[in-house]
Amino acid sequence: MNISFLQELFSSITQRDALPWRRSDGRPVHHEQVIDACRQVLESDGEASSIALAGRSLAGYQSLDEEQKSLFFQCLTADFAADPERIDDAWRAYHESRGNNELQLLFEACEPERQELLRRLNLTAGGTYALVRMREDLLSRLSEMPELAALDADFSHLFTSWFNRGFLVLKRIDWNTPAAILEKVIRYEAVHEICDWNDLRRRLDARDRRCFAFFHPAIGDEPLIFVEVALTRGMPERIQPILDANHQAIDAEDADSAAFFGISNCQTGLRGISFGNFLIKQVVQELKKELPGLKNFVTLSPVPGFRSWLDQQRRQDDSLLDDETIAGLAALDQSDWHTNSETTGSLGDYIRPLAAHYLSRIRNDRGLPLNAVARFHLGNGAELHRVNWLGDTSAKGLGNGLGLMVNYLYVPDDIERNHERYTTDGKVVCSSAVRDLRRRARKFLKGDPVT
Amino acid sequence: MNISFLQELFSSITQRDALPWRRSDGRPVHHEQVIDACRQVLESDGEASSIALAGRSLAGYQSLDEEQKSLFFQCLTADFAADPERIDDAWRAYHESRGNNELQLLFEACEPERQELLRRLNLTAGGTYALVRMREDLLSRLSEMPELAALDADFSHLFTSWFNRGFLVLKRIDWNTPAAILEKVIRYEAVHEICDWNDLRRRLDARDRRCFAFFHPAIGDEPLIFVEVALTRGMPERIQPILDANHQAIDAEDADSAAFFGISNCQTGLRGISFGNFLIKQVVQELKKELPGLKNFVTLSPVPGFRSWLDQQRRQDDSLLDDETIAGLAALDQSDWHTNSETTGSLGDYIRPLAAHYLSRIRNDRGLPLNAVARFHLGNGAELHRVNWLGDTSAKGLGNGLGLMVNYLYVPDDIERNHERYTTDGKVVCSSAVRDLRRRARKFLKGDPVT
Amino acid sequence: MNISFLQELFSSITQRDALPWRRSDGRPVHHEQVIDACRQVLESDGEASSIALAGRSLAGYQSLDEEQKSLFFQCLTADFAADPERIDDAWRAYHESRGNNELQLLFEACEPERQELLRRLNLTAGGTYALVRMREDLLSRLSEMPELAALDADFSHLFTSWFNRGFLVLKRIDWNTPAAILEKVIRYEAVHEICDWNDLRRRLDARDRRCFAFFHPAIGDEPLIFVEVALTRGMPERIQPILDANHQAIDAEDADSAAFFGISNCQTGLRGISFGNFLIKQVVQELKKELPGLKNFVTLSPVPGFRSWLDQQRRQDDSLLDDETIAGLAALDQSDWHTNSETTGSLGDYIRPLAAHYLSRIRNDRGLPLNAVARFHLGNGAELHRVNWLGDTSAKGLGNGLGLMVNYLYVPDDIERNHERYTTDGKVVCSSAVRDLRRRARKFLKGDPVT
Amino acid sequence: MNISFLQELFSSITQRDALPWRRSDGRPVHHEQVIDACRQVLESDGEASSIALAGRSLAGYQSLDEEQKSLFFQCLTADFAADPERIDDAWRAYHESRGNNELQLLFEACEPERQELLRRLNLTAGGTYALVRMREDLLSRLSEMPELAALDADFSHLFTSWFNRGFLVLKRIDWNTPAAILEKVIRYEAVHEICDWNDLRRRLDARDRRCFAFFHPAIGDEPLIFVEVALTRGMPERIQPILDANHQAIDAEDADSAAFFGISNCQTGLRGISFGNFLIKQVVQELKKELPGLKNFVTLSPVPGFRSWLDQQRRQDDSLLDDETIAGLAALDQSDWHTNSETTGSLGDYIRPLAAHYLSRIRNDRGLPLNAVARFHLGNGAELHRVNWLGDTSAKGLGNGLGLMVNYLYVPDDIERNHERYTTDGKVVCSSAVRDLRRRARKFLKGDPVT
Repeated sequence: MNISFLQELFSSITQRDALPWRRSDGRPVHHEQVIDACRQVLESDGEASSIALAGRSLAGYQSLDEEQKSLFFQCLTADFAADPERIDDAWRAYHESRGNNELQLLFEACEPERQELLRRLNLTAGGTYALVRMREDLLSRLSEMPELAALDADFSHLFTSWFNRGFLVLKRIDWNTPAAILEKVIRYEAVHEICDWNDLRRRLDARDRRCFAFFHPAIGDEPLIFVEVALTRGMPERIQPILDANHQAIDAEDADSAAFFGISNCQTGLRGISFGNFLIKQVVQELKKELPGLKNFVTLSPVPGFRSWLDQQRRQDDSLLDDETIAGLAALDQSDWHTNSETTGSLGDYIRPLAAHYLSRIRNDRGLPLNAVARFHLGNGAELHRVNWLGDTSAKGLGNGLGLMVNYLYVPDDIERNHERYTTDGKVVCSSAVRDLRRRARKFLKGDPVT
Repeated sequence: MNISFLQELFSSITQRDALPWRRSDGRPVHHEQVIDACRQVLESDGEASSIALAGRSLAGYQSLDEEQKSLFFQCLTADFAADPERIDDAWRAYHESRGNNELQLLFEACEPERQELLRRLNLTAGGTYALVRMREDLLSRLSEMPELAALDADFSHLFTSWFNRGFLVLKRIDWNTPAAILEKVIRYEAVHEICDWNDLRRRLDARDRRCFAFFHPAIGDEPLIFVEVALTRGMPERIQPILDANHQAIDAEDADSAAFFGISNCQTGLRGISFGNFLIKQVVQELKKELPGLKNFVTLSPVPGFRSWLDQQRRQDDSLLDDETIAGLAALDQSDWHTNSETTGSLGDYIRPLAAHYLSRIRNDRGLPLNAVARFHLGNGAELHRVNWLGDTSAKGLGNGLGLMVNYLYVPDDIERNHERYTTDGKVVCSSAVRDLRRRARKFLKGDPVT
Repeated sequence: MNISFLQELFSSITQRDALPWRRSDGRPVHHEQVIDACRQVLESDGEASSIALAGRSLAGYQSLDEEQKSLFFQCLTADFAADPERIDDAWRAYHESRGNNELQLLFEACEPERQELLRRLNLTAGGTYALVRMREDLLSRLSEMPELAALDADFSHLFTSWFNRGFLVLKRIDWNTPAAILEKVIRYEAVHEICDWNDLRRRLDARDRRCFAFFHPAIGDEPLIFVEVALTRGMPERIQPILDANHQAIDAEDADSAAFFGISNCQTGLRGISFGNFLIKQVVQELKKELPGLKNFVTLSPVPGFRSWLDQQRRQDDSLLDDETIAGLAALDQSDWHTNSETTGSLGDYIRPLAAHYLSRIRNDRGLPLNAVARFHLGNGAELHRVNWLGDTSAKGLGNGLGLMVNYLYVPDDIERNHERYTTDGKVVCSSAVRDLRRRARKFLKGDPVT
Repeated sequence: MNISFLQELFSSITQRDALPWRRSDGRPVHHEQVIDACRQVLESDGEASSIALAGRSLAGYQSLDEEQKSLFFQCLTADFAADPERIDDAWRAYHESRGNNELQLLFEACEPERQELLRRLNLTAGGTYALVRMREDLLSRLSEMPELAALDADFSHLFTSWFNRGFLVLKRIDWNTPAAILEKVIRYEAVHEICDWNDLRRRLDARDRRCFAFFHPAIGDEPLIFVEVALTRGMPERIQPILDANHQAIDAEDADSAAFFGISNCQTGLRGISFGNFLIKQVVQELKKELPGLKNFVTLSPVPGFRSWLDQQRRQDDSLLDDETIAGLAALDQSDWHTNSETTGSLGDYIRPLAAHYLSRIRNDRGLPLNAVARFHLGNGAELHRVNWLGDTSAKGLGNGLGLMVNYLYVPDDIERNHERYTTDGKVVCSSAVRDLRRRARKFLKGDPVT
């Protein structure tokens, strides 16, 4: 007898309780039915007998149509909160004593019943993944139904515990990986689409490609996040040669650089639970160990949003750009600007400096870089290393980022320091080349730019 | 490259930070040093950079001597609670609005900082197990330092999430199991000691023995709990033939009964986080599937505490026992009572009925059976099936339980109903044989016993 | 450290010696160079030092062009035979004594040096597979260079030992199988082409498909042979619904029949080394165990060669068919005969009986069925169970087998008896339905057919 | 469903046929019964139907008592040879043509039927191991029944193919290895006994011990050979500190030497099929890769037979030793010579030089070193590096080898050259220290010693 077999068996036993619900009159399942099932879960003792009830509830939820799901979430948020009187009593006791035990009781009184419910739903086989999917449904409603934020906070609180870095398992993805996992890699690749299995095979070419993913033991085959790496001689400037079906592979031993060219989050339902920074740093360590010859750990990253920012600057009244620069960028309005080398040459002289400025100087409300990719890598302790003009000439690349690709450089010994300066002072560490570009950008800006 | 290799590598990288602390002047590490390290963990951003800090803190804790550990726990409890003013403000806002979002903010305000600290300590490789060991230290101080209860509640709150049934992995333990795990089975067996590897080998004899354990992915080789099963013809009455080095094994296919004769919790630090009931029920399912010929799923369980309860009744003034019975039990004061078949015969006539009474009628403050083993199995939905006189003639068995062994019977179809009657009404389901015994016990009791 | 890692390492060490050969003057590698390397292998001591030499020789062979390979084989056959004088002496000693030890010496004297060479080439990592590929090259030359038969006999002798059933490992192929193996399944499928990964996914649909393959530990990922099975309700008559991209899957538990619809040998170089019969019988056992509800183990097999046999009978002077039948079959000469239901109806009345006759009565020189597929399954102990008209309406199916598909039925309890009757008397066991058809065929044949 | 599960199932199916034989009249099974079963195996077609017959035959063999086994072997040798007339005819055809095809036919005619029988017995699950055990029985009879040599040659011929290096799998043995394998390591350790599991645990201490074994896929858990390695600072001179229960472990990274201190063949039935040399060389490669800091790969080997050789020289008339030396060695006759440091000091002055002489100069009939351990390592390409006086002070060590331990040094770059000089000229490569000792030995020898 064998364990995966046992687990399968176990899940098959509980599956009786996990069959989709149907109503005899053919009408859609009503959210109140599922709410009732959830109440039973809470009334059970949270032990073995709860497993089947949890399975039934999750199956019930999955049988709801979209409208009923909305009602279900509302009901959960409204009716499974906490007991106000118990809270008030507990607060008074705490207020009086300021004691630790009273704090504990207050904490317990304040915990919404929803959290206990979610913990119990998690008892059943497959429960964790079902809850991740449930939060995906929830997130998609959040902007229209802001009252569900409290429920999302409960999910978030528990997922942070459950998907703690200590519980994640790193696995290398390659051509020996089960097809069931690989098809998910194809599906979830978010940065540079994988067309088909042949394309995937090339992306996983063991000679000069690496791919790593985090998995969580309780959700099996489903990757949480993965990163694709190209092993190259020199830091790459352009993405097309890397994605090229006919690229000439090199031997891993001959590479001096590892270029991270795609990081894809796989589970929408885990939004906000951070893995990416752990993943990159662990992968840097793996690669250093496997290939001691590697010198550079660098990304080849897109600049999403740069085009729309620049277009805005070109058009709005209080533009940061001076008029001459706006005139110089006019060629961008031609649909085929990127095909004329003279045009691209002259545009590049404007755009590379402006991109350096945009990535390091333009901040959001919280004083962090406006560009999300920059925020991610700089926050992880990387350096803004190089701005590559026409690094991505795909339609998508030209559209979002004017064809720019950026190298963020991870210098193992500097990561912590960079990270600290970034988090404490918002300091963006730049290479001298980027600093040069930024200096050049000044002459394109009205007055002296914000420093 | 291979993953366990990678994980090893990863852990070796972080091990730098996990070296035991030493002070240059040779004095013991001071708890304030570790508290400072913990504060840094909380001040970090909880992401990748926190991993090393978490490793350092745990290493620091492990370098403390017993006294410093006590001080560390006190400090943690006192200084890492919550901000009273923030709580008060949050309560007022909630009290006014009774809104869900205000509840959420109040809940967050009430969460002791200790919980976030523990979550972050868990980021490091091996963190989960280190925290389980830390709680073991904590539990051993709880009776003398009751003020630490709040800290224990934090551990308990998080462990309940982290060791959710959905995250546990069932594995069969047999002679093909790595020695590193088997040596732990030897060490942790709590019910009937395993003397050495030869003894273990017999306990795992694939012909008529089974052993299953729960593991948690994040603590690797360390079993959480395991159960030993003997496959027998007929329900066994006595433990010695099962433990006998020279027992004649039968073929698993010929067995009609599966006797659970030892359930051992392995991690003191997980006290109160329940697994046993899940384990038994899942193992029943596995065994039914593997061996469809099995009819009875039964325990062969000790009756710890029965001797001390009976001795008390024999001696105290307001004994439940009538005088004749007390006189009849006098032979128990002879050290060799169990070697004389006449004596044991006459004692048995008293003891079996009294044991049936004890197990089902004598309750603790919460109205549940006084006997902990009975509480566990009856609470799981088992039936009190048979009381076996001289079922365990080892010194330990005679000492704690007067040599009694009890069969609790798990009837798959009745488990839920029994469990429910037990939890709602405290109803102890007994076989007719046990009911007979209990009836017979009445004549040994003063007046009419509590029913 | 981990073993597959070690094995990889080991192979990488020996890979130095396994680099392709190049000549400094750019001319193709000459077969005499490789022959020299082979001689060094034989002159070595056959122990550790031979590993590198073996690797070099195999690399040298792989660097030969097609013409040089032919010369290499000729040279191997001619120059690595045995010493005639040693044979003569050994025979004389044996002839005189008829002793067992003399026989042993004679046997050793007669063993061609090639066999020892092949055994030593097999020492190197990857040697076994390299030799399988080498025999593939050899087999392709055999009809034009019949003198190589002796060399092929050496391969065959050794492969029979090396690929002994006792060394093969059965593995289930499903969507959890590594992609590296699955792509080979796509490539090697010989019966009903697998178009792409989507097609494969459907073929491996766990609900009502099974696939099993034999592997040999020394050639890793390369399957030797695999069989595809459809789980169905009732024995299937037609292959298109099984291959249909949109087939409605059933639950495995609801199936009463397992239909083997494709058996593909993967390694041309192992031609004549039989696995298929072992595979089918073992898979029948696996399926019975997994799905006790299965009643029928049956193939859905093509009838390759039937069309050419029938066309020959329609055209040749001494046809077995009477004139009326030949006239009745004339419609086959229309290219679209299969699209007209009237035509197919009337053709079927002729063709089903004639196919039953063809499969069971028409024999080759050795008295066995002329049809190779029939020979395989009947030789394995199956029964000729049903002839399905228009069971395969693909171009290929219509072309080779006039669209017929046949069910051969494996009745576990009859397999051995059927097999024995077949091997001793050439008896073809038929269902009563097939016997009926065969009887009907008589009226289409000139005179009384051979019985 | 899972494969090891399937394999198990398969073996359970064939186990029906593999039950021990019993005779109804209670008399022992007669060898002729098993011979008959073997004949049926040969008369079967060698395909699937033979599997059950093979299983029955092997079960029958295992049911024979020792005497019947002897008769069985005799019968097999005498009656399953080859057909003399077919051989004669084939020889005549070959003699006339000297053709390759005729050679092939002669080779086939000469192959004893026994070989085909053994190949077919190998079809059944577990057949390979059963045959290894059968040869073990055979080898134990060979000296008394020399006529069985022909049968042994058949086993040897097939085993050489089946246990080809290319089929072996190297595995590291450590504390994570299944107990089922570890107990075999305890049982098979032949050089320095492993007392119990605690002793084993220390031998496998991951900090400064390594252990590797060869396995064959078809015989599962049974190791073929294993080697134990100590990682040390400096080449060790003495074995006791290595075996010491309380040895102070060092970190693997700090070691500069890997000392092979025990190589144990596990399967008597594979005597003469060489693995040891492959194992050592592969392990050297593994260790170099894992621990680049290792400089010396060296053995710490016993000198079995030295004491008996020296005693013979001390006593026989034509001793190699001069009288003064014989007198100087007289102290060896005291039972406690090794406890007196003065005695051991003076004895050492004689014995170290004489041991160097013995190991490198004293040869057997084939001109190779008389000492088997020296023959093994020197034949593998090692250098005779150092002779350690009182390197093994155990009773066994003092008894066989006068307490000497020898370091044979494997210098990766010299292995092939040393091996070649040894095999071609019998050259024993010695360190300068050993050459010095050997020179000193001259003055203890009568006249000029054999060079």
